[in-house]
Amino acid sequence: MTFRKTLTLAGVFVGLAATAAFAQDAAPDVAVVAAEAAAPAPAVQPDVTYIFNTLLFLIGGFLVMFMAAGFAMLEAGLVRSKNVSMQCLKNVALYAIAGIMYWVVGYNLMYTGVDGGYIGSFGPYAFDPVGGDNLATGYSTASDWFFQMVFVAATASIVSGTLAERIRLWPFLLFTAILTGIIYPISGSWQWGAGWLSEMGFSDFAGSTIVHSVGGWAALAGAILLGARKGRFGADGRGIAMPGSSIPLATLGTFILWLGWFGFNGASQLAMGTITDVTDVSRIFANTNFAAAGGVVASMILLQVIYKRVDVTMVLNGALAGLVSITAEPLAPSPLAAILIGAVGGVIVVVAVPLLDKLKIDDVVGAIPVHLFAGIWGTLAVPLTNADASFVTQLIGVVSYGVFAFFGSLIVWGIIKAVIGIRVSEEEEALGLDRTEIGVEAYPEFTGARG
Amino acid sequence: MTFRKTLTLAGVFVGLAATAAFAQDAAPDVAVVAAEAAAPAPAVQPDVTYIFNTLLFLIGGFLVMFMAAGFAMLEAGLVRSKNVSMQCLKNVALYAIAGIMYWVVGYNLMYTGVDGGYIGSFGPYAFDPVGGDNLATGYSTASDWFFQMVFVAATASIVSGTLAERIRLWPFLLFTAILTGIIYPISGSWQWGAGWLSEMGFSDFAGSTIVHSVGGWAALAGAILLGARKGRFGADGRGIAMPGSSIPLATLGTFILWLGWFGFNGASQLAMGTITDVTDVSRIFANTNFAAAGGVVASMILLQVIYKRVDVTMVLNGALAGLVSITAEPLAPSPLAAILIGAVGGVIVVVAVPLLDKLKIDDVVGAIPVHLFAGIWGTLAVPLTNADASFVTQLIGVVSYGVFAFFGSLIVWGIIKAVIGIRVSEEEEALGLDRTEIGVEAYPEFTGARG
Amino acid sequence: MTFRKTLTLAGVFVGLAATAAFAQDAAPDVAVVAAEAAAPAPAVQPDVTYIFNTLLFLIGGFLVMFMAAGFAMLEAGLVRSKNVSMQCLKNVALYAIAGIMYWVVGYNLMYTGVDGGYIGSFGPYAFDPVGGDNLATGYSTASDWFFQMVFVAATASIVSGTLAERIRLWPFLLFTAILTGIIYPISGSWQWGAGWLSEMGFSDFAGSTIVHSVGGWAALAGAILLGARKGRFGADGRGIAMPGSSIPLATLGTFILWLGWFGFNGASQLAMGTITDVTDVSRIFANTNFAAAGGVVASMILLQVIYKRVDVTMVLNGALAGLVSITAEPLAPSPLAAILIGAVGGVIVVVAVPLLDKLKIDDVVGAIPVHLFAGIWGTLAVPLTNADASFVTQLIGVVSYGVFAFFGSLIVWGIIKAVIGIRVSEEEEALGLDRTEIGVEAYPEFTGARG
Repeated sequence: MTFRKTLTLAGVFVGLAATAAFAQDAAPDVAVVAAEAAAPAPAVQPDVTYIFNTLLFLIGGFLVMFMAAGFAMLEAGLVRSKNVSMQCLKNVALYAIAGIMYWVVGYNLMYTGVDGGYIGSFGPYAFDPVGGDNLATGYSTASDWFFQMVFVAATASIVSGTLAERIRLWPFLLFTAILTGIIYPISGSWQWGAGWLSEMGFSDFAGSTIVHSVGGWAALAGAILLGARKGRFGADGRGIAMPGSSIPLATLGTFILWLGWFGFNGASQLAMGTITDVTDVSRIFANTNFAAAGGVVASMILLQVIYKRVDVTMVLNGALAGLVSITAEPLAPSPLAAILIGAVGGVIVVVAVPLLDKLKIDDVVGAIPVHLFAGIWGTLAVPLTNADASFVTQLIGVVSYGVFAFFGSLIVWGIIKAVIGIRVSEEEEALGLDRTEIGVEAYPEFTGARG
Repeated sequence: MTFRKTLTLAGVFVGLAATAAFAQDAAPDVAVVAAEAAAPAPAVQPDVTYIFNTLLFLIGGFLVMFMAAGFAMLEAGLVRSKNVSMQCLKNVALYAIAGIMYWVVGYNLMYTGVDGGYIGSFGPYAFDPVGGDNLATGYSTASDWFFQMVFVAATASIVSGTLAERIRLWPFLLFTAILTGIIYPISGSWQWGAGWLSEMGFSDFAGSTIVHSVGGWAALAGAILLGARKGRFGADGRGIAMPGSSIPLATLGTFILWLGWFGFNGASQLAMGTITDVTDVSRIFANTNFAAAGGVVASMILLQVIYKRVDVTMVLNGALAGLVSITAEPLAPSPLAAILIGAVGGVIVVVAVPLLDKLKIDDVVGAIPVHLFAGIWGTLAVPLTNADASFVTQLIGVVSYGVFAFFGSLIVWGIIKAVIGIRVSEEEEALGLDRTEIGVEAYPEFTGARG
Repeated sequence: MTFRKTLTLAGVFVGLAATAAFAQDAAPDVAVVAAEAAAPAPAVQPDVTYIFNTLLFLIGGFLVMFMAAGFAMLEAGLVRSKNVSMQCLKNVALYAIAGIMYWVVGYNLMYTGVDGGYIGSFGPYAFDPVGGDNLATGYSTASDWFFQMVFVAATASIVSGTLAERIRLWPFLLFTAILTGIIYPISGSWQWGAGWLSEMGFSDFAGSTIVHSVGGWAALAGAILLGARKGRFGADGRGIAMPGSSIPLATLGTFILWLGWFGFNGASQLAMGTITDVTDVSRIFANTNFAAAGGVVASMILLQVIYKRVDVTMVLNGALAGLVSITAEPLAPSPLAAILIGAVGGVIVVVAVPLLDKLKIDDVVGAIPVHLFAGIWGTLAVPLTNADASFVTQLIGVVSYGVFAFFGSLIVWGIIKAVIGIRVSEEEEALGLDRTEIGVEAYPEFTGARG
C-alpha cells in the first residue's frame, strides 16, 4: 500500500473518531458542570484530606518514577546491542540529573511567583521542615515536589530515545540539565505555574503538551542538528530499518510506562481527599486504560490492513501514543471517547513513522510520533469532550510551546554542538557507543552472533 | 525415579499438608466467627471509608494490571526465541481487548441484574460522572470497574501461554474477545454477580476457580483442538523438552505476578475503610506470601528428591501454583495452613507437568497445572480453613465452572477453527511466528547462535 | 591514574561533602526539634490513623517485596550467562525461605520481649485474627510483620550476589535460613526491638547498618571462606574482569531497587496517620531520591576523571550506594546534604571496588562496597544532620553489628563448609552452575555465541 493510501485510510479513522467523540460528549459535559456546581461542602476532616492528597502525590510519584525504568527498557530494546549499555547509562543519569536540577532551580522557576507571567523565580526549593504541620497547603510540599520532579524526568527520557546510537554522553547530559532545570520549568510555568496560558484558559490536564510535546520538540531539534545514523537512509533516500536488539525488553518498557501512566494522569487530579476527587481519579484510571487500549487496537488493525503483518514495535508505540493522547484530558471523556482519542494516537504512529523517514529524520525509537504528534492531537482534542476548553486557545498553547521548546532546544543544542560537539566519530558509531564511551558491552557473551 | 514413585511421594505431601492445615485451623475458625460478631459499629466517617475503599481498588487495580507484564515476561522467557515477539504482541493485545470488551458488555453481564440467576444484562457500563458524589455505593464505580477488568485480563493471559508457538494471531484475539466479553463474565456472574452459586454458598474469595480455573479450562480446550507443536512428542510418545529462551525474563515475570497477587487477593477484600477490613487485607498479604513461599519450597524439595536437580522453571511455576492455591481463601488460613496450601500447589506442578506430557497435551508454559489444577485444589481446600464453606458446594462450583468454561471454550474454539482456522502452517511454525506473522524478530542480532 | 591518586581524589570529595552537609544542617536540626515540640495534638480519628498506618506498611511492604525482583535482575545481569539460572533460582528461593523463617522464629526473636537486652523470644508469630479490631496497636500486626519480613529478605539478597558463580545451592539456602531466622533477628533486636543499642541512643532509621551492613558482613564472611572464582585473579595477583551477561537486566534491577527504596525508607517512618508523619514520609521520599542521584552523578564524574570512560555497572552501584548511605537517616538531611551523603556513597563504590580486588576478595556484583562500606558511611554520617545522634554511639553500633554479623556468619559458614561443603567442583564451575545444579540453561539458544 502506498503512503498516500495510508494517509487516506488514517484520515477515515480520524474523521470517525472525532465525530463519535464529539457526539458522545456533548451531553456528559453538561453533566460535568452540573455535578461540580452541586458538589457538597467538604465532609472530610482537613488533616485527613491533607494525608490523602499527600499520599496521592507519593503513590503517583513512585509510579511515574518507575517510568524511568520503562523508558530505559523500551530504548534498550529498540537500539542495537552495541549501544544498549549507553542507553541504559543515559537513562539512569538523566533521571538523576533531573532530580537534582529540578530542586536546584527548576521547581521555583516553574511554580513560585509566576503570577500570570512567563517565568517563576530562581533558586533552590525548600521543603516543609521535619515534623512539618502546615495544614494550610493541603498537602506536603516535598510530596508535591517529588511528583513534579518525576514529570520532568519523563520529558528528558523522551529526548534520550530519539537521539540514540550516535550522540555523545556528556553533551547529552549537559542538554538534559538545561532542559530539566531551565527549558521545561519555564514553559511549564506558563500553565501549571498559573502563568499567562493558564489565565488564557489553556487546558492540559497532565501534560500532553507540557511534558510530552516539549520532550518531542527537544528531541526533534536534537535530531535535526545531530543528523541520522550512518546507513539509516539509502542512496535512494529510502529508510533502512535497523531492528532493535530485544523485543521483550521493549515490551516490558511499554508495560511499565502504561503502569506509570496511572500515576501520571491519575495523580494529576492533585487531590483525593474528597469523594468527588477520588471518583475523578478513578475515571482517569479507566480512561487512561481505554485510550491505551484504543491505541493498541487501532494500530494493529491499520498495520494488518496496510502491511498484512502486525509489527509489534508499532503496536507498542501505538499504546504509548494512545496514552499521550489522553493525557491532556483524561477526566472528561466518556469511555468511547477515550478509546477513540487513543485510537487516533495509534493511527498517528502508523502514519507518522514512515513520514519521518521521508523527511530523513532519524528517530530511533519513534518518540517524535508518540510524544510530539500524539501530544499535539491530544491537546487539540480537549474541546471535543471538555466544554471549558476552546480550540483556539488550545492551538495557541500548542504553537507557543512548540516555538519555545523547539527553538529554545535548537539554540542550546547548537551552542553545545559548536563548543564541544555532540556526535561521536564515524568509527565510534560503527563500533558502537558501548565500547567507545562506556567500556562495557551490554551482552559480551553474545557478540559472536554479531560477527 | 518413576512417575508412579513421584505420585506416591506427592501423595504423602498432600496427606501431611491436609492434616496439618485442618488441625491448625479448627480453633482459629471459631475465633474468626467470634471476632466478626463482636465487630464494633463503623467508627470512620462514610466519606473517608469511601475514599479508602476506592483507593484499595485503584492500588489493587494497578498491581493486577502490571500482572499483564508479568505474564508477558513469563511467556516471553519460556518460548523459543523465534516466537518471542508474537508472545509479546499477544499479551499487549489481549490486555487491550479485555479492557474494551469488559466495558462494552462484560461488566454488566457479570454484575448487573443477575439476582440469583445465571447471567446479567447486556450493554456497556456507565461510570459515575465527573465530580461524582454518590456516597451510597461506598466506592467509585470506575475504580471497581478497573479492578474487575484487570482480573478478566489475567484470565486471558493464562490462555496465551498454553497455546504459544503455533496459534495464529487473529483467531487467538477473536477468542480473547469472546472469553473476556462473554464467557468469563457469564460464569463470573454466578458467584461474584450474586448469582445461583453465590446463593448456594460457594466460596471463592479472589478467584482460584472463577479466574484461574476458567482460564485454565479455556487453555485446555484450545490446546486439545490446536494440537501439540511439531516435534514436541517423539515417535515413542515421550515428551521432548523445548527449552525457553530466557530464564531471567521468566523469573522477572514470576516476581511481577507475585507482586501483583497482593493486589489480586488483597484488594479482593473489597474494602479497607474500617480497621477490621484493613486488618483482613493485611492477613491476606501475609497469607498470599506464605502460600507462594510454600509452593517454592515444596517444589524445590520434591525436584531435588526426584531429579537431583532443581529445575528453575518448575520452581517458578511452583510459586505461581502456591499463589493460585491460596486465592480461593487467602483470609482464613493460619500462616502454617497457608504455607501448606501453597506447598500442595507446588507439588501439583511437579507431578502434573509430566502427567500432561503423558496425555500428549502441549502446554508451553505449564499454565494448566498452575492455574487449572492448583485452582481446583485451592477451591476444594477452602472448607479446611473456612467453616462457612462446604466441600460439596465447592465441588459443585468447581464442576459447574469446569463444564461451562471447558465446553463453552471448546465450542468457540471449534467454530473459529472451522471458519478461519487457528493454527499456522508447518512451514510457518518451523520458521517461527515472529517472522511470519509479526515481521519483527525478537533478538535479530543473536540469530547467528540459532543457525 | 594510580590507585593512590584515586584515593586522594576521593578524599577530596569526602571532605567537601562532609563539610557541606554539616554546615548545611546545623540550623535545620534546631528547626526539627522545635517543630516536633510544637506538634499539635492528634487531629485524626484513631481508626483512620490505624488504617493509614497499616496502609503505609502494606504499600511499603509490596515495594520492598519487589526489591527481590530487583536483586534478581541485578545479579542475573552481572553474572556470566552460564550461571544466570542459578542466580534466578537462588533469589526466588531465598525470598521464600526468608518469608517462612521470619514467621517461624525471626519476628519474635527480634521484636518480642527484648526489653533493653540482646535477644527476643523464640517461637512463631501470631497475627490479629480475622476481623481483628484491636485499635490499641495503631496498625495491623500482619502488615507490620509483612513489612519487616521483606527487609530480612533484602539482607539475604545481598549475600546472594557476592557469592555467585561458585557456591552450591543447598548450602547457600541453609545459610539463608539461619541468617533470616536467627542472625538478622538477633542483631536487629538490639535496635529495632528496643534492645541495648536502642537504649544507648544508636540511630539507624531504615537500616544502613541493621539491614545493609549485616548483609554485607555475611557476604564478606562467605566470600573469604568460599574463595575467589577460578581465574578471577591472575598469576600476578591482578584482578581480571569477568563481564556480566546483560547490562539492561542489571539496569532494570537497579531501577526496581531504587523504586523499592521509597518503601524501604519511606515506610520506615512507621506511621502516616498524622499530617506531620505523612510530611516526614514525603521528605524521606525526596531525600532518598536525592541521595541516589548524588551517587549516580558523583560516580560518573569520578569514573570520567579517572578512567575516561563511564562504566555503567559502577554507576548502577553508585546509585545503590547512594541509597544505602541515606538509609540510616533519610529524614533530617536537607536536599543538599542528602545529595552529598549519597555522593560519598558513589565515591566509595568507585574507590572500593578496585580495593577489594587488591585484597583478592571476589565480590561478583559489588555488594560489599555498596551495602557494607556505604552502609557504614551512612551510619556514621547520621550525626552530621541529626543532632540527637552521637558519633561515638554510632561507631559502637557499627562495630557491634560488624563483630556479631561477621563472626556469627563466619562460624555458620565454617560449620556448613566443614559438614557438607559450600563450593562446587572446578569442573562444575567451568561448566557453569546452570548445567550442573539446575539443569536449565538461561539462554539455551544463544550458547553458540559462547562456544
